[in-house]
Amino acid sequence: MKLVNSISEMKEFVSEEKSKKSSIGFVPTMGFLHQGHISLIEQSVKDNDITILSIFVNPTQFGPNEDLDKYPRNLDNDLSLANQAGVDIVFHPYASEMYPSGYATFVNVERITSALCGATREGHFKGVATVVCKLFNICNPDRAYFGQKDFQQLQVIKRMVDDLNISIEIIDCPTVRESDGLAMSSRNTYLSAEERQQALVLSQSLHLAKKLVDSGELDVVNLTESVSKMITSMPLAKVDYIEIVDAMTLQPVSQVKHKALLALAIRFGNTRLIDNTILEV
Amino acid sequence: MKLVNSISEMKEFVSEEKSKKSSIGFVPTMGFLHQGHISLIEQSVKDNDITILSIFVNPTQFGPNEDLDKYPRNLDNDLSLANQAGVDIVFHPYASEMYPSGYATFVNVERITSALCGATREGHFKGVATVVCKLFNICNPDRAYFGQKDFQQLQVIKRMVDDLNISIEIIDCPTVRESDGLAMSSRNTYLSAEERQQALVLSQSLHLAKKLVDSGELDVVNLTESVSKMITSMPLAKVDYIEIVDAMTLQPVSQVKHKALLALAIRFGNTRLIDNTILEV
Repeated sequence: MKLVNSISEMKEFVSEEKSKKSSIGFVPTMGFLHQGHISLIEQSVKDNDITILSIFVNPTQFGPNEDLDKYPRNLDNDLSLANQAGVDIVFHPYASEMYPSGYATFVNVERITSALCGATREGHFKGVATVVCKLFNICNPDRAYFGQKDFQQLQVIKRMVDDLNISIEIIDCPTVRESDGLAMSSRNTYLSAEERQQALVLSQSLHLAKKLVDSGELDVVNLTESVSKMITSMPLAKVDYIEIVDAMTLQPVSQVKHKALLALAIRFGNTRLIDNTILEV
Repeated sequence: MKLVNSISEMKEFVSEEKSKKSSIGFVPTMGFLHQGHISLIEQSVKDNDITILSIFVNPTQFGPNEDLDKYPRNLDNDLSLANQAGVDIVFHPYASEMYPSGYATFVNVERITSALCGATREGHFKGVATVVCKLFNICNPDRAYFGQKDFQQLQVIKRMVDDLNISIEIIDCPTVRESDGLAMSSRNTYLSAEERQQALVLSQSLHLAKKLVDSGELDVVNLTESVSKMITSMPLAKVDYIEIVDAMTLQPVSQVKHKALLALAIRFGNTRLIDNTILEV
């Protein structure tokens, strides 16, 4: 497995592989890899001749009061996990080369970025779309892999790829969970034991909503209320949002009809966790 | 010469040429071709195995009160000129396929788009950067050709290509002028005979400024005043802007030191003409 920092070296590697007609899979991450990332890597290794993993804690997707500086990092462990999972090349660029002095260009996906996480994390998805567009241009993959846990991010990327006519297939992979149901996230490492215990309520409330829908409850106000009641029964949980929206447009719906998305963002202390599920009749 | 309307057909053609290792040159235009466009095509034909010409009057770069609907079009003549000049394939997409229902993604180059034409044509460069990014992704060229007449557009594209790590070489070509000095533009066709005559003052005032700089006048206020005096001596000329800025950043300067850009936008009736020159000591 190769480790590359420089953009030009990365482009050279890709161009060489392209001239050999290798198919390229790409898994963009911010590192501190967990089983969720590994599942994306494994899918890519299965689908492609070459798998590129990027590890880049992207400053432009963090707000001024967010956790950029303390975002967890462990490059040595990441490299060892990536190697085991079959990655061919790790791209680990410097922020100073990704965003040099005078940098001025941003990709913005309008509308679907104003809901959910976009409403409370201003500029977050502009940072995500921009860095993913850059990484796509550098790594020029045939396929790119994203987790369904970041459902809104996935929709933003799909919209960007369609709109900008980018020739990359976006593959979404199911959320990977701990055995007790907590969705895997690099931010789980922030949780105290007590918070970790109470955080189980996220996945439990998703199950509750699915059950209610199965039993015929399709009213969004009622469903949201039931989920909210369950979550706020946990004394350490602070609701950022609990929303049921159209799964494609992320716009509000009043009834669960086709595919709806139940999306949660809940804080435990300073840690903000997200989770989601699709509700369908 | 081939004419293609559909994005997928265009991508297929490009992918076939790429697999043959053909080098691809790309000339994006809004059609109504003149000698300025032809000079770009000729340069591309010289530099590349294959030349793609796009003809697309891009709605997102026109403001609500601008000339989108009456922008001059003459596809038959364009095709004949393109064919003579050596174009291999003309890409002439439909606006409805470039911007389908639900379209939401825009590329914005900040800062350098707020000066000059960006100040009076709000959203113009966002539309330009977005469509060029899309066309680059569809046509995937090795080199793309732009005229220096649209100097700010050229700087916006260069900045976008650098910032988004797009692997395309941007080639800028000198402004082509009528024998009397008027910069070639599709919009020249709007001018009445009298306006056409008075519009010569644009290139004449650029010459004046160059002469003044050669004779030692480096003060931007004095230079701008001289140019302004000459232009406003034409009764039909209405100044949109007359500015001398840093040629890279397009930010104001007070002295001509390194490379400065003298840029003009002047209206004659409803027709807005631009021209520019580099001033250097």
